[in-house]
Amino acid sequence: MITIKQLISQIEQRQPVLNKAELSAAQLHQTLDGVGGLYDASNQQLSFLADPKYVSSLKDSHAGAVLVTEQYSEQVPATTLPLVVATPYLAYASASQLFVPQLSKRAVHPTAVIAESAIIDADVAIGPFCVIGERVRIGAGSRLDSHVVVESDTCIGAHSVIKSQVFIGYNCIIGDHVRLHAGASIGAEGFGFAPTRDPSSSGWERIAQLGRVVIGNHVRIGSNTCIDRGAIDDTIIGDHVIIDNLVQVAHNVRIGAGTAIAAQTGIAGSTTIGKRCIIGGAVGITGHIEIADDVTLSGMAMVTKSIKVAGSYSSGTVAMPTAKWRRAAVRFRQLGNN
Amino acid sequence: MITIKQLISQIEQRQPVLNKAELSAAQLHQTLDGVGGLYDASNQQLSFLADPKYVSSLKDSHAGAVLVTEQYSEQVPATTLPLVVATPYLAYASASQLFVPQLSKRAVHPTAVIAESAIIDADVAIGPFCVIGERVRIGAGSRLDSHVVVESDTCIGAHSVIKSQVFIGYNCIIGDHVRLHAGASIGAEGFGFAPTRDPSSSGWERIAQLGRVVIGNHVRIGSNTCIDRGAIDDTIIGDHVIIDNLVQVAHNVRIGAGTAIAAQTGIAGSTTIGKRCIIGGAVGITGHIEIADDVTLSGMAMVTKSIKVAGSYSSGTVAMPTAKWRRAAVRFRQLGNN
Amino acid sequence: MITIKQLISQIEQRQPVLNKAELSAAQLHQTLDGVGGLYDASNQQLSFLADPKYVSSLKDSHAGAVLVTEQYSEQVPATTLPLVVATPYLAYASASQLFVPQLSKRAVHPTAVIAESAIIDADVAIGPFCVIGERVRIGAGSRLDSHVVVESDTCIGAHSVIKSQVFIGYNCIIGDHVRLHAGASIGAEGFGFAPTRDPSSSGWERIAQLGRVVIGNHVRIGSNTCIDRGAIDDTIIGDHVIIDNLVQVAHNVRIGAGTAIAAQTGIAGSTTIGKRCIIGGAVGITGHIEIADDVTLSGMAMVTKSIKVAGSYSSGTVAMPTAKWRRAAVRFRQLGNN
Repeated sequence: MITIKQLISQIEQRQPVLNKAELSAAQLHQTLDGVGGLYDASNQQLSFLADPKYVSSLKDSHAGAVLVTEQYSEQVPATTLPLVVATPYLAYASASQLFVPQLSKRAVHPTAVIAESAIIDADVAIGPFCVIGERVRIGAGSRLDSHVVVESDTCIGAHSVIKSQVFIGYNCIIGDHVRLHAGASIGAEGFGFAPTRDPSSSGWERIAQLGRVVIGNHVRIGSNTCIDRGAIDDTIIGDHVIIDNLVQVAHNVRIGAGTAIAAQTGIAGSTTIGKRCIIGGAVGITGHIEIADDVTLSGMAMVTKSIKVAGSYSSGTVAMPTAKWRRAAVRFRQLGNN
Repeated sequence: MITIKQLISQIEQRQPVLNKAELSAAQLHQTLDGVGGLYDASNQQLSFLADPKYVSSLKDSHAGAVLVTEQYSEQVPATTLPLVVATPYLAYASASQLFVPQLSKRAVHPTAVIAESAIIDADVAIGPFCVIGERVRIGAGSRLDSHVVVESDTCIGAHSVIKSQVFIGYNCIIGDHVRLHAGASIGAEGFGFAPTRDPSSSGWERIAQLGRVVIGNHVRIGSNTCIDRGAIDDTIIGDHVIIDNLVQVAHNVRIGAGTAIAAQTGIAGSTTIGKRCIIGGAVGITGHIEIADDVTLSGMAMVTKSIKVAGSYSSGTVAMPTAKWRRAAVRFRQLGNN
Repeated sequence: MITIKQLISQIEQRQPVLNKAELSAAQLHQTLDGVGGLYDASNQQLSFLADPKYVSSLKDSHAGAVLVTEQYSEQVPATTLPLVVATPYLAYASASQLFVPQLSKRAVHPTAVIAESAIIDADVAIGPFCVIGERVRIGAGSRLDSHVVVESDTCIGAHSVIKSQVFIGYNCIIGDHVRLHAGASIGAEGFGFAPTRDPSSSGWERIAQLGRVVIGNHVRIGSNTCIDRGAIDDTIIGDHVIIDNLVQVAHNVRIGAGTAIAAQTGIAGSTTIGKRCIIGGAVGITGHIEIADDVTLSGMAMVTKSIKVAGSYSSGTVAMPTAKWRRAAVRFRQLGNN
């Protein structure tokens, strides 16, 4: 159960609650136990009006409290407590975190296998069947769920959350307040091979990947995403980067601070992505290029050359009835004739 | 070793075996130990003729038994036992399940870490190093292989199979007769963030994902596929949905009953997919749209708008010699000029 | 610490070091502790000049030793030891492997659950929480890190490295000198279903996948890649095949020797890929087709038909400013009109 007072305190880490002074003590001690949409929320739930197009739902809402801008605060029904902020969506984001159930105990599970040389700070939780290598360091308040593997010499910062079955290779650096989701692979060996040119064989000689993965603070990595370690230099993920599920980040990629990358995007080796980019789902970015700051790439875009100017870029063709598409695809092919 | 009698009993859960009455007791007790193609099968193996274009292989087959339609049953060689059905491919599917080796014992492995408050029904198998959270329920006859993590308050139905290294987040619902393959991530946190708009930072505020994943009955999820939990409401996978490997299903997606989704497809947040859709591999579907029932999407299609009419849709261009493709791609780009 | 003598011995497994006879005993006993780029390398590090465009960095390098061709060996500074080879990049690949830290002990961890009927050769390392099924065989010198699952009757060759959280299904064959990276899924059930055609249900009947995955020697499989077992016959990965992360290889695919496949590529069921192909990232290849030997596919290519002639093939359109792209995409769509 979360009190309105706790909610306000959480929200105000980002922005002021503008009508705070008008709330009574009784209102401040009112409690909520969850969240809901404007239409569905019960009187025990928090809701929000972020997009004015839903304002018609506001007056019928039964939510216990609702986050709104000043402009719409008058339209909140009498049975609902308005919490007035400049940016309700951001306020909802802040508040939502209070309602997550606390699953794991702040303890080290007896089944975890932890090297004696590892340095585990106070108040670190390590779940069942984790394996922590030699000389690993884990900062205060971090939490590793079950079956996490951290190879030797890797350093994890403070207040990070590593979900179950994450793999972190040796000698990597993970910052503070990082969240790695289930099954992510950080610091596996990059895909580097030299052709043997041996006429008797079609083989490849493996290039050992001796660089690291260095992940900044406040980074989020999704489920089953792969971030490979560098070949010689490091693969670098800047502060505040957020990455969705099933993304491929190849060796020696560098991603600038604040960039967001949606699911299934792939970034080939040695490419540099700028700051504050927004990269849609299933985008493909070739290797050894540079993407400027503040570039937006729409979903499934194919990027084969550097992008030097901020802005929005797209490629591909959109779904159409298959019979018509067949004709269009043939005509595209004919465009390739001299 | 499977007897013809057992085969018939299994097949008849779906369709009658039309010549059953003509079989002798000796034939019913004949045994088989595996399956094979018409051309390769030994006299200890079951085969089938599903596609008439392979009928020429039928007369030379050495299979112990063959599933055929009435039309081709006369062409089965004398040394092979014909089993006559309306749909041999479906009959083969049914029969094939009898030949899977039974790997795991019906027991709870002593290394599994199971919360005391979990309720595990009779005849449940839980393999080594599984971690089962507080108040989890697992229905009769379900089987969890090794290293499965089930967070607290999640409910798994009866007769489901959860392969090794699957992750299931807290408070999710998995139906009966569900199969989750190795490394699947169900109920991880969705990719929801609000921009902080803080000029001194390029940060994002995480939106806790408080909805669930709700998976119906007879659902199949492939290896390393990710199905994220909803933000406020639930992510919903209908009955009889089958999903291949490495698929991304974002928060608050809803997938209608009987839909099939091939590998590496991505469905962005809050999109609704109809019933009985057939979605090819590596399709990309944007967020907040609706796909009608009975839509077919060909592989790699890019869907950026709702599809309201059943039918087949495609997009993209097909591989051609690179030199010609370069010209075609330049001309496509020129189509964007005024 | 690696001596120059050790380096030479490693490099000469692939090609001669041409100035070996000119080196003094002191030079042969000189040691290095890592690798670096020409510009960055310290006098304790090995570097290389593979691409003549970096020759200007050579004369300023502080590397302890540098791999160069005869042509550029005169330009190596006096403080750096030149090692002259025909192919510096290949020599670097060979040498790099000496600098990987040795993490795991050559031992079987007491927490591993190993069936009594498994046959584990001498000098095999098995890490914490591995689960090894009945009648599994593991060849000499192979190493399994943590949480590896090997189901019953599977055979792993000699000198293979299986990283953490890899899943290998029952009855598969993994060759010698194979490397499987974290979270890879080998031999999970393929995506095979027969429609039930039951008017009262939209269901699917599962087809048990009774074939195997057979992986040759010197194969490399990336993180979270999925290789499904065959339906009746086997899925086959030839010798010297190298596969990156998050790749999907469906049931009954066959991949010829020496082929390289970049991340996020998907190959649908029963397709055959030739030898020595180079397949870019996020390529999609439809099922039941054949790709000839020595085919190159550029990233994101969509292959819907067999390719019978060696050469380079591409498809797709490349990223352009979104406003212009919208016009181009509309015009592509119009190409589909009669």
